[in-house]
Amino acid sequence: MQDEAILRRLKGVRQQTLHLCEGLQPEDFGLQAAEFTSPLKWHLAHTTWFFETFVLTPYLNDYRSSHPEFQRIFNSYYQTLGQPLSRAQRHLQARPTLEEVWRYRTDILDTLQNAISMDGLSPEALNLVSLGTHHEQQHQELMLTDLKYCWSFSPLPPGMPQATRSGPIRQEPLEWQPLPEGVWEVGHDGNGFAFDNEGPRHRTYLAGGNLASRPVTNREYLAFMDDGGYETPALWLSDGWTTVQNHGWRSPLYWFLKDDQWWVYTLHGCQPLDPDAPVCHVSAYEAHAYATWCGARLPTEAEWETAAPDPGPDQGPVNGDWHPRPGGDAWYGAVWQWTASAYQPYPGFRPAGGAVGEYNGKFMCNQLTLRGSSCATPAGHTRRTYRNFFYPGDRWQFTGIRLAQDKE
Amino acid sequence: MQDEAILRRLKGVRQQTLHLCEGLQPEDFGLQAAEFTSPLKWHLAHTTWFFETFVLTPYLNDYRSSHPEFQRIFNSYYQTLGQPLSRAQRHLQARPTLEEVWRYRTDILDTLQNAISMDGLSPEALNLVSLGTHHEQQHQELMLTDLKYCWSFSPLPPGMPQATRSGPIRQEPLEWQPLPEGVWEVGHDGNGFAFDNEGPRHRTYLAGGNLASRPVTNREYLAFMDDGGYETPALWLSDGWTTVQNHGWRSPLYWFLKDDQWWVYTLHGCQPLDPDAPVCHVSAYEAHAYATWCGARLPTEAEWETAAPDPGPDQGPVNGDWHPRPGGDAWYGAVWQWTASAYQPYPGFRPAGGAVGEYNGKFMCNQLTLRGSSCATPAGHTRRTYRNFFYPGDRWQFTGIRLAQDKE
Amino acid sequence: MQDEAILRRLKGVRQQTLHLCEGLQPEDFGLQAAEFTSPLKWHLAHTTWFFETFVLTPYLNDYRSSHPEFQRIFNSYYQTLGQPLSRAQRHLQARPTLEEVWRYRTDILDTLQNAISMDGLSPEALNLVSLGTHHEQQHQELMLTDLKYCWSFSPLPPGMPQATRSGPIRQEPLEWQPLPEGVWEVGHDGNGFAFDNEGPRHRTYLAGGNLASRPVTNREYLAFMDDGGYETPALWLSDGWTTVQNHGWRSPLYWFLKDDQWWVYTLHGCQPLDPDAPVCHVSAYEAHAYATWCGARLPTEAEWETAAPDPGPDQGPVNGDWHPRPGGDAWYGAVWQWTASAYQPYPGFRPAGGAVGEYNGKFMCNQLTLRGSSCATPAGHTRRTYRNFFYPGDRWQFTGIRLAQDKE
Amino acid sequence: MQDEAILRRLKGVRQQTLHLCEGLQPEDFGLQAAEFTSPLKWHLAHTTWFFETFVLTPYLNDYRSSHPEFQRIFNSYYQTLGQPLSRAQRHLQARPTLEEVWRYRTDILDTLQNAISMDGLSPEALNLVSLGTHHEQQHQELMLTDLKYCWSFSPLPPGMPQATRSGPIRQEPLEWQPLPEGVWEVGHDGNGFAFDNEGPRHRTYLAGGNLASRPVTNREYLAFMDDGGYETPALWLSDGWTTVQNHGWRSPLYWFLKDDQWWVYTLHGCQPLDPDAPVCHVSAYEAHAYATWCGARLPTEAEWETAAPDPGPDQGPVNGDWHPRPGGDAWYGAVWQWTASAYQPYPGFRPAGGAVGEYNGKFMCNQLTLRGSSCATPAGHTRRTYRNFFYPGDRWQFTGIRLAQDKE
Repeated sequence: MQDEAILRRLKGVRQQTLHLCEGLQPEDFGLQAAEFTSPLKWHLAHTTWFFETFVLTPYLNDYRSSHPEFQRIFNSYYQTLGQPLSRAQRHLQARPTLEEVWRYRTDILDTLQNAISMDGLSPEALNLVSLGTHHEQQHQELMLTDLKYCWSFSPLPPGMPQATRSGPIRQEPLEWQPLPEGVWEVGHDGNGFAFDNEGPRHRTYLAGGNLASRPVTNREYLAFMDDGGYETPALWLSDGWTTVQNHGWRSPLYWFLKDDQWWVYTLHGCQPLDPDAPVCHVSAYEAHAYATWCGARLPTEAEWETAAPDPGPDQGPVNGDWHPRPGGDAWYGAVWQWTASAYQPYPGFRPAGGAVGEYNGKFMCNQLTLRGSSCATPAGHTRRTYRNFFYPGDRWQFTGIRLAQDKE
Repeated sequence: MQDEAILRRLKGVRQQTLHLCEGLQPEDFGLQAAEFTSPLKWHLAHTTWFFETFVLTPYLNDYRSSHPEFQRIFNSYYQTLGQPLSRAQRHLQARPTLEEVWRYRTDILDTLQNAISMDGLSPEALNLVSLGTHHEQQHQELMLTDLKYCWSFSPLPPGMPQATRSGPIRQEPLEWQPLPEGVWEVGHDGNGFAFDNEGPRHRTYLAGGNLASRPVTNREYLAFMDDGGYETPALWLSDGWTTVQNHGWRSPLYWFLKDDQWWVYTLHGCQPLDPDAPVCHVSAYEAHAYATWCGARLPTEAEWETAAPDPGPDQGPVNGDWHPRPGGDAWYGAVWQWTASAYQPYPGFRPAGGAVGEYNGKFMCNQLTLRGSSCATPAGHTRRTYRNFFYPGDRWQFTGIRLAQDKE
Repeated sequence: MQDEAILRRLKGVRQQTLHLCEGLQPEDFGLQAAEFTSPLKWHLAHTTWFFETFVLTPYLNDYRSSHPEFQRIFNSYYQTLGQPLSRAQRHLQARPTLEEVWRYRTDILDTLQNAISMDGLSPEALNLVSLGTHHEQQHQELMLTDLKYCWSFSPLPPGMPQATRSGPIRQEPLEWQPLPEGVWEVGHDGNGFAFDNEGPRHRTYLAGGNLASRPVTNREYLAFMDDGGYETPALWLSDGWTTVQNHGWRSPLYWFLKDDQWWVYTLHGCQPLDPDAPVCHVSAYEAHAYATWCGARLPTEAEWETAAPDPGPDQGPVNGDWHPRPGGDAWYGAVWQWTASAYQPYPGFRPAGGAVGEYNGKFMCNQLTLRGSSCATPAGHTRRTYRNFFYPGDRWQFTGIRLAQDKE
Repeated sequence: MQDEAILRRLKGVRQQTLHLCEGLQPEDFGLQAAEFTSPLKWHLAHTTWFFETFVLTPYLNDYRSSHPEFQRIFNSYYQTLGQPLSRAQRHLQARPTLEEVWRYRTDILDTLQNAISMDGLSPEALNLVSLGTHHEQQHQELMLTDLKYCWSFSPLPPGMPQATRSGPIRQEPLEWQPLPEGVWEVGHDGNGFAFDNEGPRHRTYLAGGNLASRPVTNREYLAFMDDGGYETPALWLSDGWTTVQNHGWRSPLYWFLKDDQWWVYTLHGCQPLDPDAPVCHVSAYEAHAYATWCGARLPTEAEWETAAPDPGPDQGPVNGDWHPRPGGDAWYGAVWQWTASAYQPYPGFRPAGGAVGEYNGKFMCNQLTLRGSSCATPAGHTRRTYRNFFYPGDRWQFTGIRLAQDKE
């Protein structure tokens, strides 16, 4: 990619982060309801810290950080750069203030833009700028899911204004797409940007089977609930059943009953459940139990990648409508789809050297991959080979279910 | 007290709360580092809620709350008024915003002032207004101690500007004041305002002994530390030793070593330890262990009350200097002094009826009383009969040590 | 006490410990259901360790322990003698075996008896032998309460055979005994054995009032339960209400409903609740809430001691009937009675020097005193001045309620 | 397999369980140091319960259990058969006594033997008998690892007598065995016994690489430790590093330093570390970090199975020597070898119907597979296709490390 294209991407992504924060109140930037969420202020600073630490400091001559202490504070998992603060206590970072963080963002962006447009940066550095924009896009989705989670604890739950859309559309009936047996190639081929964990491209053997043509809907999931799904241990993985018992789960996250009707909390406030929308905010345990109840199973990530189409060039969310709707694209833009595959390195995977090499490899344990993208995934951040990953019990992402079947 | 005096007190106390918040940043109002602290925003709203709930709603004709949901949100321990929110999650109250809380404060104060000056309030209601001002003063001290505790977690710890004072003064040598044996009267006699827990006035038998003329200093406490005080189990109460081990305590709260020198974190930032200042931020366990190490003991609250002078009329802190200093008054205005007395009802104590009666009585278990007042106690909130109370392991208040001895 | 009397007491107490273990199974000696209970094997060894550590080792010339490692293993709270093992993991002491512990008991007793009868022991040492027998008696009661607690977790709960008694007797109606105001003397006067915490005898001022003539019965407590006692926060101390919510308490410990009838688990198996028996296995929180519901209060320990008669010389439990019955003595032998008094040192209290001085003093925080004795208290271990003490939330002892009232 | 062969296997396995318990003390049967271990008494009963529940009850006409309550008590993960007891509280099952459990074992075995030899059992039932013997063999290994874990907490750690062996042997140098790229078949083919999770046999694509010829030794692992392995976060998976920090791991389990020498606690007591023996009692996190430090990786289970030889017919442990030794078989009988593969169903896997179908499938999440067998695996329980599985942080099994490399 040329300098100009990178510069344009950089500006666009940074602008989109600002856009997401419009209309928020000062208190919204400090909320942290769980160790797995971070305050928005932290996201804003951390995505800036990334550019300073991996681009400006190593590649810009005579670069002197004006906030060397941010190095330590806004680090996340990069353990080689020093012990980060306890993740659960990020909400206690009273300083720098939000105002100082906004200034930090502007300063670093200015320096970076100058460095690219005037002085020139090495191709290696430009690649890291590009990586930084994709990193910030990941955090854009996290900002929305973290904020939603935190807001849901507020006794007076806030909501953003919602973009209007054409009226509700009924979901298509579910069909089964056959997947032939044989050796297939999966993984990113190195053309264009991809995260390191998407490669190397490699051969894999698929036993064959069928994939569902679209995600499971709320209506379908309600049938599982009505049939006692949450009370039937035989449907669940052992760790899943323990989790259901420990947390008292009886429905997906954000669902609640009001006058015998199901409602959901959304980023746009509380709304009646739309039975035709894809079921969302389920853990992999729930996805597995639902699939078992159906006599089906979850697809492997190789199956998913083999069956899925490439996303369209403009694939992305409807800005300002952060809630999955019925009738959209069957693969991208509504809900991430849990796979049955543990998140593990592809054959021949080698993490990059140095701290940036910790990016993905070190999480390759105890998590499952998810494929597709969600209503909160930024435009231009969707790929067929994209490997998202979360713990099987996580529910605060926009996560749903696609079914698979063995070959008869 | 007449209407006018109450009105003056009400205005003065509300004004002082505003004064405490001057210069703070938006993020400072949302911090909550532990279940035992509350965000400043909550304190601001809760002290307002008190007036609305106990004065306006029951005593003002046709009063209609414009925020009926605040009833539930800003309740604290008044269990009879409905299940309060989990205390530890107050920092997740994203709404109402700080701005809305400031408006709430203004609205309620306006209504209250009008009610007092124009319409008149019954003596019973005026007494509750008076109680509300003392309640708010209690929270003024908590606002400072909570903020200090939360700020201390920030990797870049903030500080307020500090009022200048005349230079350091050496503490007086410790002397022992005799306390004769016999039947004494203690407790509030009902003239002027007092909390319900300060009465009824009653007789008690004192075995006699001696009380120290001033609190223990940092220099004296360092001698205990240097002598292995924190490593000698025989000096400690059993629960105290467990607490020391569990938390790894090796000094009072907020102390830290830098280049082999002791420093303390204060509301005005980090400062070198002043050896002549009263030792502060110790638990009752540490106070007990120190006293045992000295061959002394802590006084009972009856001994303290019998020996102490009445506070002067202007007794109060030096505004803007929220840190105990050497050479001040020996009884009030520097550090609260732990007593050996469990916080229990005086003989004949009867809590008031209704929710306001939960004010103090329900805490009469597992806590110890403290006497005197601290550098953070508001002016006009100090009485000889005042019974402060905290759990023996609490350290985030401005708590220190006064010694006592048995009669020879 | 002369040598012979001490020798007789020693033999009797040790014999009674054996007697308590008759009919138990090997697994009963290793059970530990909570940190606050200890396995019987540990009790058997610890009470023997006491004699070895405080009598044989310091006072017997040339005494060589044949198990020096027991010093460390069977220590309890005596922190000055080295870090004891984690209390909660005593059930993991696979060695020494029960058989070795029995042998240890025999060996130490033989040595001790020889030392007393043949060689002679100093009066100081004999006092410690005497203390050791009272210490063992304390553990006899704990052995029964710990075993009961552990057994109650067994899916097939065991029971001991029960001594027969004459049929059920109806409780006397509750009467109020007046208690005059004035200065009274309480505490042990030093004649005969007492624990250090029972003295010194001292004056105290009582405001006067009335004490109930007998403990509260199950029938009376059921009325409190039926009136929503466990669902009414205003009746409870704040820490009590938290405890009720956290543990889901809805009745005293060991109660359960079967076919709409209340049953209790006893050391003799499950039995229907006897409405006329004293209510038992309640915490101080429940005792306080019950008293508040009645418009009464709990007595102070000084009130109790002033009002109570001395126990008869043979006061003790009916061996083999470890369950409180209706119609017994109104002060001793059925249930310990919670007082409102925090467990604190009497004026002038000085703990003995050395490790044995840790005996009682270090627990004088966060606990309440109980007076009287229970159906599990050994004969000869009852005194009017006896101060038992537990945390207000403890329920596994045989603890009940006596009411008090203020003077009109 | 014919009736006679099954009968012989049944007798042999049951006899071996008795053999393992020889010389143990009564207290050894009740120990439970963690939720993941069970008391020996429970293992003895549970392996008997299996035969009663899955063979006698459904297949024997007129069979009446003499202990119907054991159904509930000795159930483990079979949630469809009713809520099992809390796993962590199995040590509180005071009844049935050990003696009663021995009798239960004898009774069920007698009934079973009679049923097989005299009355005949259907082939389906005989298959379940066979499954029961393999199930009991799994528990034989767990009995040893659980006992070792519990004993290690005892302040006086016990040990079994150890069978003598020929003197220490130096390990062979490590060599790399090539593994060709291509489509391979793995999984059990259905001839002879296998657990359901070992099949179906299926094709898989291997990228090729090299496998180490033998497990990693203590000497090699010590080099990793000496090089700061436990202090270098970049070597660790994220969850692994968290685990290391939380538990303070600085060496494999059971290692301790004495006079600057490494010792290990073994089932035969404490012994100096043998540098030539395979490293044992490491978690998958440690195995991964070690491999990363070497520039290697862990093998996938398909790689392992493709490279490994079949075990010899008599493959099994040296009875009475439950500790890995140098110089043994390079694949079986010393330590289980962690693989990089998440424990997941093979393509086309279908769990059996009913409760017995919960056997393996429900654990297929969050665990990793291990291959080979250990010094504690019973003779006749070893297969090339055997899939053992544990959580990556588990260390109490006899678990070690085999390295793999990508193709150059």
